[in-house]
Amino acid sequence: MIKEDLNTFIKLANKLVDAENHTPVVEPISPKGVTQKLNLELSSEGISEEEFYQLLEDVMLNTPRTATNRFFNQLFGGRKGKATLGDLLAVMLNTSMYTYKVAGPMVGIEKAVISQTAELIGYEANQAGGTIAPGGSMSNYMAMVMARDKVDKDSKNHGIGVKMLVYTSADCHYSIAKNSALIGVGRNQVRFIPTDQHGRMLVEELEKQINIDVNNGHLPFFVNATAGTTVLGAFDPIEEMSSICKKHNLWLHVDGAYCGSVIFSEAYKHLVNGAHLADSFSLNAHKMLGTPLTCSLILSKEKSHLYDSFSNEAEYLYQTDEDDFNLGKTSLQCGRRNDALKFWALWKSIGTRGLEALIDQQFLLADFARDYIKKNQDYTLYSFNDSISICFNYKEIPPQKLCTLLYEKAELMVGFGQFKGQEFIRLVTINSNNTEKEILEFFRVLEDFVAANRGELQIPAGATKA
Amino acid sequence: MIKEDLNTFIKLANKLVDAENHTPVVEPISPKGVTQKLNLELSSEGISEEEFYQLLEDVMLNTPRTATNRFFNQLFGGRKGKATLGDLLAVMLNTSMYTYKVAGPMVGIEKAVISQTAELIGYEANQAGGTIAPGGSMSNYMAMVMARDKVDKDSKNHGIGVKMLVYTSADCHYSIAKNSALIGVGRNQVRFIPTDQHGRMLVEELEKQINIDVNNGHLPFFVNATAGTTVLGAFDPIEEMSSICKKHNLWLHVDGAYCGSVIFSEAYKHLVNGAHLADSFSLNAHKMLGTPLTCSLILSKEKSHLYDSFSNEAEYLYQTDEDDFNLGKTSLQCGRRNDALKFWALWKSIGTRGLEALIDQQFLLADFARDYIKKNQDYTLYSFNDSISICFNYKEIPPQKLCTLLYEKAELMVGFGQFKGQEFIRLVTINSNNTEKEILEFFRVLEDFVAANRGELQIPAGATKA
Repeated sequence: MIKEDLNTFIKLANKLVDAENHTPVVEPISPKGVTQKLNLELSSEGISEEEFYQLLEDVMLNTPRTATNRFFNQLFGGRKGKATLGDLLAVMLNTSMYTYKVAGPMVGIEKAVISQTAELIGYEANQAGGTIAPGGSMSNYMAMVMARDKVDKDSKNHGIGVKMLVYTSADCHYSIAKNSALIGVGRNQVRFIPTDQHGRMLVEELEKQINIDVNNGHLPFFVNATAGTTVLGAFDPIEEMSSICKKHNLWLHVDGAYCGSVIFSEAYKHLVNGAHLADSFSLNAHKMLGTPLTCSLILSKEKSHLYDSFSNEAEYLYQTDEDDFNLGKTSLQCGRRNDALKFWALWKSIGTRGLEALIDQQFLLADFARDYIKKNQDYTLYSFNDSISICFNYKEIPPQKLCTLLYEKAELMVGFGQFKGQEFIRLVTINSNNTEKEILEFFRVLEDFVAANRGELQIPAGATKA
Repeated sequence: MIKEDLNTFIKLANKLVDAENHTPVVEPISPKGVTQKLNLELSSEGISEEEFYQLLEDVMLNTPRTATNRFFNQLFGGRKGKATLGDLLAVMLNTSMYTYKVAGPMVGIEKAVISQTAELIGYEANQAGGTIAPGGSMSNYMAMVMARDKVDKDSKNHGIGVKMLVYTSADCHYSIAKNSALIGVGRNQVRFIPTDQHGRMLVEELEKQINIDVNNGHLPFFVNATAGTTVLGAFDPIEEMSSICKKHNLWLHVDGAYCGSVIFSEAYKHLVNGAHLADSFSLNAHKMLGTPLTCSLILSKEKSHLYDSFSNEAEYLYQTDEDDFNLGKTSLQCGRRNDALKFWALWKSIGTRGLEALIDQQFLLADFARDYIKKNQDYTLYSFNDSISICFNYKEIPPQKLCTLLYEKAELMVGFGQFKGQEFIRLVTINSNNTEKEILEFFRVLEDFVAANRGELQIPAGATKA
């Protein structure tokens, strides 16, 4: 039975790959049209094998294609064969990661991934710890809980009793505020520190705010440095932030969900200089490193904080082996999917040097895209070097309108963003399978599309940005 | 490239299935021996394709086999072909579930799964909402956050300011206490209500405790009813608990991670009578329904609570379509793996009646196992009807010793548990691929093993329990 399903899978998967090559963007169905076009409804009786496979194929072929060379819409994209292979095997093996007894060598695999990443950050191998969280928001979440429990040892038992403050840049990911609500600290306790013209936290503003809060009798406890802000891809100055945190005894976390993976590159790791000084560091291997979703690593400089905040005794669960091999003692969840194998498979097969090449390729493509924009007067560039988010507008067309039409007409998947009130298209060169050819193709498609849709985009004939 | 990796996958997957049939329990490697036996270390350079595939095969074949007929160690087991096929496709499609723009029909699929489940619980379709959390602990977590934010509307903004109390049975899952710490309420605020001799919460004790706490000026806010306790598989009396909750205006959650899926069975849904009265309800499709890990549904009787606690504005993310189709507005995470497709694929292919058959088979096997134990004087039974956890001892052998030796000698994967101070083996008949034959085989293997290992188990010759 399972072997027939495996055969079906391989047929469908090959069909998908062919479809992706042939038609990189699918014609979108309207949300309300989905149930008319596809028979998604669940009912009392099943359907025949034949109907089922046909339906599955239809669903698959109508799903937006995130692995193609026209997908620039999110902070992930592309597909790495070895990582995919690893994740497919993870589905078959169906390992829950909590104990050595049931996870076996997968424990060794997760530990290898964690310890090698800790080493690249610059953490002491025998002190540091880490785990894999279900996404970057939850990695940030775990960091915040560890920080909370460190500054107020009573809070995990007695609940939060004091006003605790969080510091992050105005351009950080939304999970910092959301997590503040979730952990019982409250959204209003987040101080959004202003950023410079490149989207980096203004360190002097951070220090000023901390001093004000301390003087007012509040309890600062957590500072978040973003390595790759969501819109601009900017890097906060970790080293300088660390000095302030040390002075005030604050937990420093690096949210590297988007671009923390620069630690793999000799050429770009300087963007997170001082990472080893941070108390915790997260990165999403499903972003720059191209593994399937999700693979978010959260590292703690001192492993003991993971135990302090996340361990639980459970005799029914922990029945053999030491804590150090029962990964449930330091994870957020209880039952937990194997998100380590995909990353390990990729890393093992191409080595750290291979991962470095993926990172470098993304920056190379970003430079190439920025050059293209700078050389063409129809474009306005809004972003900066050392970022794989390239923010621009074309012929002053409202970016939301352009991105939405490109999506509706199945030409390109690309999104828009905003920085200091300016809205623009955000091209993310995160798919390292791409080459300069695909980036040129991106611009060509965009330009041809605008030329062909002047009416709908309401562009006067011959208009340029000037 | 990806096509070669797909070919490799199919070869490995078929090899795994053959190995599972041939050798259902792998010889365990000691935690420290893993890195000697398998070259898991990550280094600067990659390895050749040939070495890589060999290593991946070795890793795969040394990983504990959770899908076989000798795996009774956790609250999951077995493999459903259609669900596996769905999850393998989810890896290939690599959909992040936050927006309709990038998830397309997968939004419809998740909505179908959620709304049909809500209907089975007995919730009003147009009022109820739900999402898929990364595991049962996190489903409970989301319920607790919604309850907290409902009773104290200020807490998400201002932080927790009052002492809030949680009620759950002494035999509940550990996540209730862990989550109390995580959400800022504190572990000490959890009241563990005693259970009856079958492991069910004593409702009169619940009411007594609530009255004491209210009289002391505390703020009760959350009551957890477990549908399938971790060890005994007991069901708390939801209907009676609901009356108390209504009287005191408390949020009632049903933690059905283990056995909430009885809602799919006409014969067993009475075990969660009153489920429609609860404010929230969770179930793990990766447990009784056999999908790959993880697929944990959290349903809320009123969708608005999901928005209140988990939504976030994010212009860079939500760029097209209404809130109702942008699932990130009601999920815990931001980027989120597609855990819906596997469940939908199984459900669609066999229908609700097919899912019912899976549930009924598990109870049938449990009855069969209990009968076997009752009829054999070498066994002592510690558990009760209407549960798929069969707790017993054999010849008064210390269960920890027996389970560990069965594992070390690669005979059976089964764990032990404790209830009111009594320790026992816990056989879980959750793999609905099994038949009475496999259950008989379980006992035969156990008995032969004991006979062959009297020395190591230190059993005097001829000993029976009497």
